[in-house]
Formats: sequence, C-alpha cells, structure tokens
Amino acid sequence: MSDKIAIIVAGGSGTRMGTDIPKQFLLLKGKPVLMHTIQQFFDEDAHTQIIVVLPEYQMPFWKELCVKHHFNIIHAIVKGGETRFHSVKNALDSITQTEGMVAIHDGVRPLVSVDVIKTCFEQLKNHRAVAPVVAPQDSIRKVTNNSSEAVDRSEYRLVQTPQCFDLKTIQQAYLQPYESSFTDDASVVEKTGEPIFLVAGNKENIKITTPFDLKIAEGFI
Amino acid sequence: MSDKIAIIVAGGSGTRMGTDIPKQFLLLKGKPVLMHTIQQFFDEDAHTQIIVVLPEYQMPFWKELCVKHHFNIIHAIVKGGETRFHSVKNALDSITQTEGMVAIHDGVRPLVSVDVIKTCFEQLKNHRAVAPVVAPQDSIRKVTNNSSEAVDRSEYRLVQTPQCFDLKTIQQAYLQPYESSFTDDASVVEKTGEPIFLVAGNKENIKITTPFDLKIAEGFI
Repeated sequence: MSDKIAIIVAGGSGTRMGTDIPKQFLLLKGKPVLMHTIQQFFDEDAHTQIIVVLPEYQMPFWKELCVKHHFNIIHAIVKGGETRFHSVKNALDSITQTEGMVAIHDGVRPLVSVDVIKTCFEQLKNHRAVAPVVAPQDSIRKVTNNSSEAVDRSEYRLVQTPQCFDLKTIQQAYLQPYESSFTDDASVVEKTGEPIFLVAGNKENIKITTPFDLKIAEGFI
Repeated sequence: MSDKIAIIVAGGSGTRMGTDIPKQFLLLKGKPVLMHTIQQFFDEDAHTQIIVVLPEYQMPFWKELCVKHHFNIIHAIVKGGETRFHSVKNALDSITQTEGMVAIHDGVRPLVSVDVIKTCFEQLKNHRAVAPVVAPQDSIRKVTNNSSEAVDRSEYRLVQTPQCFDLKTIQQAYLQPYESSFTDDASVVEKTGEPIFLVAGNKENIKITTPFDLKIAEGFI
C-alpha cells in the first residue's frame, strides 16, 4: 500500500453554474469533470489511495456515472459535511493508517498538472505542509467598508490545490473547532502554528465554477 | 466629437509568450489581439476617440497589419515610453481637449465586455475615478521574506481595466514623478488622494500574457 492519499473534495451543488447538474459532474470533453481530476492523481502514481468526498444524495448518481463512463480507477467515497471543513474532516476520519502523506484537492480543479502533484508530495520530505501558489496577474486592492486601497501585488500569491500534509499534522489540525476564516486546508493547519511551504503551481489549474471556466478547460484539455 | 477617450496601452514585447511576436499582435481567431480590443471600445460607442500606445519600432508593423486585415476603426497612435506609466503619460499629453472622460485599457485584454466599458464611463457621472474588479476565486496568502500567511480573501479584489477617469483628474495625477508602486492607473490617481470607485468587472476579461491565455481567449470568442 502506498503512503500517498489523495482526498478529492467535490461538494458543489451546481447553483453558481446556473445549472441543475453539480459542477463536478459537468461534462468536459464528454467525461465528468471529477473523473478528469481523479485521473491526474492516478497518472501521478497509480498506487495513491483516492478518497472522493461527495454529498450523500449525489453518491448513487456518481456510481451510475462511473458505470456509464467505464471509469475504473479505484476510489473510496466518503459523505460530505455541512461545509468544506466538515467534508475534509469526514475524509480524514475515514483513514485507518497512522502515517502517510495526504493531498487535499478540489474536485473541480481537473487541470492540475501531474508535475505539481508530484512536487507537492516530494516537498513533504522536508516540510509538513505544502501548498501550490501562482502570482496574481492583476493589480490587487484591499477593500474596507466603503473604501479600498491598492496593495503591492508582489507580496501576494493565489493559492491552489492540492495542498499536501503529513497525515498526523493534518489530522491534528482538523481537531480544532470550525472557524469561518478557514478558506482552505493550509489555513486550518497554519492556525496550529505550522508554517506552510509554498511551491509553484500551474497557472491553468483553475477552479471550474462558471460556464466560462468550463470553456477554458475545454480549450485546454 | 465625443467626450469619451479610450487609451489602449499595448507595450508588450512578447518575451513572456516565448515568441518573437509581441503578444498584442498574436492572432486570435485570425485577427491580432489588439484589433479585438479596439473593436470592443468601438462597439460600446462608435464616437469614442481611440488612442493606441505602441513602442515606436512596432508602429510600421501595426500599420501594415491594419492594411492587411482591412481594419478601419479610426485611431491615433502614440509612442510608448520606458514603462507603462510613461506610455500612459505620453497618451495623456497627446490629448488637446480640456474636458472629458478617459478610459485606460490594456491592449492585451480583448475580452472586456461592452457592458463593463459602458458601466465604467457611466459611473464617471458620480465619481472621478472608476475601476472594474472581480473577486478572487482562490485563497490568498501574503508573503513576507521566507514566510507567508493566509489573509481573508473577501477583503481583496483583483483589478482589471478599463480604469476610467475624469480627464483633468488623470492628467493632474500623471504630473507626479514615477514610482515603482504604480502598478495601474488607479494607484497613480489614488496617490493624489482621490478615492477609486469600484464596479463589477467581467471575469473573462483576462490579460493575455501566456500561450494558455491565448487558448482561453480562443475558446471564449
């Protein structure tokens, strides 16, 4: 058994897409987005244990999709929670081994490169928490009440996934009570005092949340 | 004569693209990127005065492209400067009228919507400086020396163009000496104490700086 675990969080309900189909199930080149995402982790290492987190009501539909698309990459399914935090916690609780490396990835980021996944896992040899980032292309403003001010964009990075952690470190971090400031897993781990090591992400690794994003991904794949 | 002026800044040399052709001249659906950009301002209002800023050595090539592509939207060409700041200043110095509204736009943002241009100009009835922004999709980290920390992304906006200004306000602001913190025109104007009014941009209005961006734009247009 590999010491690599990939938790792929697919909790979307599809409302932002203006469609009834949750965005992780939308077809990208004829195949659901989530299958493309899982494929990248399989391609990086066929022995990685894959855990997919889905809202309970979507599980039967997902299983049907797997049959229909002859999708045979082995993965476990875990029930999602009220928020992303609770979904990740459910997945972490489902892990029986006590040591390993965990990549936590958004199900709607199918364009993550195999190289970025590899780099994130590799850096866990030296660090307990790793996140891929890209430099913002646009200027950035900070908004406060009714006003805003320019900030130095060279001091900022946009954070992607997979965010990778030593298993014990991330499980320990997820014992904390939920806070609304936890926008990603790195922020949960950081709250425990653990520093986050940043690596270069791949720019095209966008989150598919709008029809425009789907077009982008179609163009890229 | 309209009281609307559009300054379209196209200073790129093409190095980031890994190509010899400056990115504003790359073909998007068979037509140079810069022509798509100009077209959007023409479509918003055919009477807007259009000023294109180009490096001097690229001017003959641009004129050839206009003939070749039968591009007949009337526009003035102004010589670019050492930095984007100096390029915009050259364009502002070329304006002879004393009152009006100026939109300053990146030549490599051909996907700006006509609606966003319209909204920016309209808001100049109530404000002297307007910029279109979008909410970041990713988490944001602030980097400091060798470390970084999560920040609350709901407090940040990514700034696009066109940034629109009352003519006198922007000309006055550009009398300031150049500072490296001037990453966009809003930051130049803000330095004078003038607040920037933010409006919703269109998400797809990306800057075309890499081959991936060109693919995105191809998929979108």
